[in-house]
Amino acid sequence: MAGMGPHPAVADVRRAVRLALGDLRPGELVLAACSGGADSLALAAALGFEAPRAGLRAGLLTVDHGLQEGSADRAAEVVRLAPRLAIGLAEALTVSVGTSGGPEAAARQARYAALSRAAERLGAAAVLLGHTRDDQAETVLLRLARGSGTRSLAGMPARAGIYRRPLLGLGRATTVAACAALGLIPWDDPHNLDARYTRVRVRERLLPALEREIGPGVAEALARTADLCRDDADALDAWADAVYARAVQAAGDAQDCALSDIETGGPVVRVAVREIADLPAAVRRRVLRRAAVEAGAPSGTLSAAHILQVDRLVTEWRGQRRIEVTGGIGVVRRYGTLIFARQPASPVS
Amino acid sequence: MAGMGPHPAVADVRRAVRLALGDLRPGELVLAACSGGADSLALAAALGFEAPRAGLRAGLLTVDHGLQEGSADRAAEVVRLAPRLAIGLAEALTVSVGTSGGPEAAARQARYAALSRAAERLGAAAVLLGHTRDDQAETVLLRLARGSGTRSLAGMPARAGIYRRPLLGLGRATTVAACAALGLIPWDDPHNLDARYTRVRVRERLLPALEREIGPGVAEALARTADLCRDDADALDAWADAVYARAVQAAGDAQDCALSDIETGGPVVRVAVREIADLPAAVRRRVLRRAAVEAGAPSGTLSAAHILQVDRLVTEWRGQRRIEVTGGIGVVRRYGTLIFARQPASPVS
Repeated sequence: MAGMGPHPAVADVRRAVRLALGDLRPGELVLAACSGGADSLALAAALGFEAPRAGLRAGLLTVDHGLQEGSADRAAEVVRLAPRLAIGLAEALTVSVGTSGGPEAAARQARYAALSRAAERLGAAAVLLGHTRDDQAETVLLRLARGSGTRSLAGMPARAGIYRRPLLGLGRATTVAACAALGLIPWDDPHNLDARYTRVRVRERLLPALEREIGPGVAEALARTADLCRDDADALDAWADAVYARAVQAAGDAQDCALSDIETGGPVVRVAVREIADLPAAVRRRVLRRAAVEAGAPSGTLSAAHILQVDRLVTEWRGQRRIEVTGGIGVVRRYGTLIFARQPASPVS
Repeated sequence: MAGMGPHPAVADVRRAVRLALGDLRPGELVLAACSGGADSLALAAALGFEAPRAGLRAGLLTVDHGLQEGSADRAAEVVRLAPRLAIGLAEALTVSVGTSGGPEAAARQARYAALSRAAERLGAAAVLLGHTRDDQAETVLLRLARGSGTRSLAGMPARAGIYRRPLLGLGRATTVAACAALGLIPWDDPHNLDARYTRVRVRERLLPALEREIGPGVAEALARTADLCRDDADALDAWADAVYARAVQAAGDAQDCALSDIETGGPVVRVAVREIADLPAAVRRRVLRRAAVEAGAPSGTLSAAHILQVDRLVTEWRGQRRIEVTGGIGVVRRYGTLIFARQPASPVS
């Protein structure tokens, strides 16, 4: 084997991981979240290879969701594998999964909470996740079918907080091939074939149907769509953030003091109508959404329909009364200002 | 039947058409493009009903693509139906379909060219098209699978030039029910079941698979996605247009006169780098795309990869040579200006 490079799939995964580590400083700790499946196993192996070459420390975290028979053994097995991947630090994190938002959402939430806590405790600079281009395609398709907007279609970002997803540009076939080339036997989670999960049906039935009926390369195309949508969403958010700051400033300067935080038991957000009236709808509605969230409306239940109602206070003003959104937050227009606040406990003169 | 309103589906189609006609002036001519299928038949019937009530004149156009046995008889039949729909003016337009871009694209191009010519000849103020929410969902899914951006995911607009699509908010089931309620027998184009057409496979196989695997309401969700993406694309285009004007102006003020339109045999577009360097990528790339198109690059073959190369002249400037895009157009950076132009016939000192 002397003089031969690694298998192309191994080289691809390593290169992707190397690029994702480029900005870290020597001595910092990087963790790989590893379920034992092909994606995260290939990821962890690449981290074990690349970290010392970049002067970084490598660690591995695996999460025991406690949802399947033998899940603790499974987690212990992944931890025992770490030395073979040249990873010195390895931990199994045991979580208890609730039911809020359905089984997939609850498991995800518990998993990320445990990973974040462990990363903080261990002082890690980054946590790598094994999501591939195929996962991205599934995500985009799922969100598309929910009627989501650009930000949602943007799918999973390559970086968010401490998390990094180095493998978003690679297909699942590459991670499978990399494991095979390294003699690593990935664990096939039976959940990944359980058709009760929407994501499994998307993966096993819908994406193959798309490839068959429209043509090959659908996963790549969906991932490309996600990238374009992410750039667009970033630009619009930047625009809306700048306008929001101006519009709140302008309203604060002309504040009528009719409502205070004390009276409503929560933040009061004032937005000057004149700063937003002539904006394109997409930007104006982002500003209104941000104002509602800052006033305390839970973003998860704040719908496009709510924001459309609030928008009519700007675009079709004819003396409407308070518009209720979600979480007890409502919006009134007084003179040239929109006031986002919780209902005051007692009437305000 | 006295005192009874029309069938709900008929009422829905009429309301949609009425809303689409609201801004027209009395006496103006409105044409419905009608293939004889359920969507455009319901559309034409609603136009025949609503036009006189709005003081408008109604007409009907049907296109004979000459691609199927008996298509001329078919077109004549639609024309003969017009009086029953209370439409006085009706014409069959015969077109010859080329092959450029595939059979669906070629037929579409020939159809719109004929409709536009007829509308101009007849002095029409608007041409109504029968596309429904289901057509919109198919369009979004097709484009998504091509890896298109936000503008493309926006699907078909409710208005574009002389064309209007009043039925984008209604499902195909509504137009079918409206025809049945009015005793109109729609023509089922055999092409609509021909699985050689990608759109037919999307309609007959993929959308049902999406409904089955992800849940009902997928067509509505895809149409909602299109609406959100359209708003986003409009906003970003508006931003990019404003920046483009400033960046061209700034470059013109500091023009180095090295290239002129005469030397290159085409327009030369200059863009000041300092006006675009700090923009979000989505806006900067839209400005660069517009500059390339204004210089003569055909927008159909100008890819995201081309624009990415040009973008590196801004974001990763290290003295690159001319970047070729498409249609013989290239881009060079001289000092702080990007110059988009056809290759000069002779070297320029």
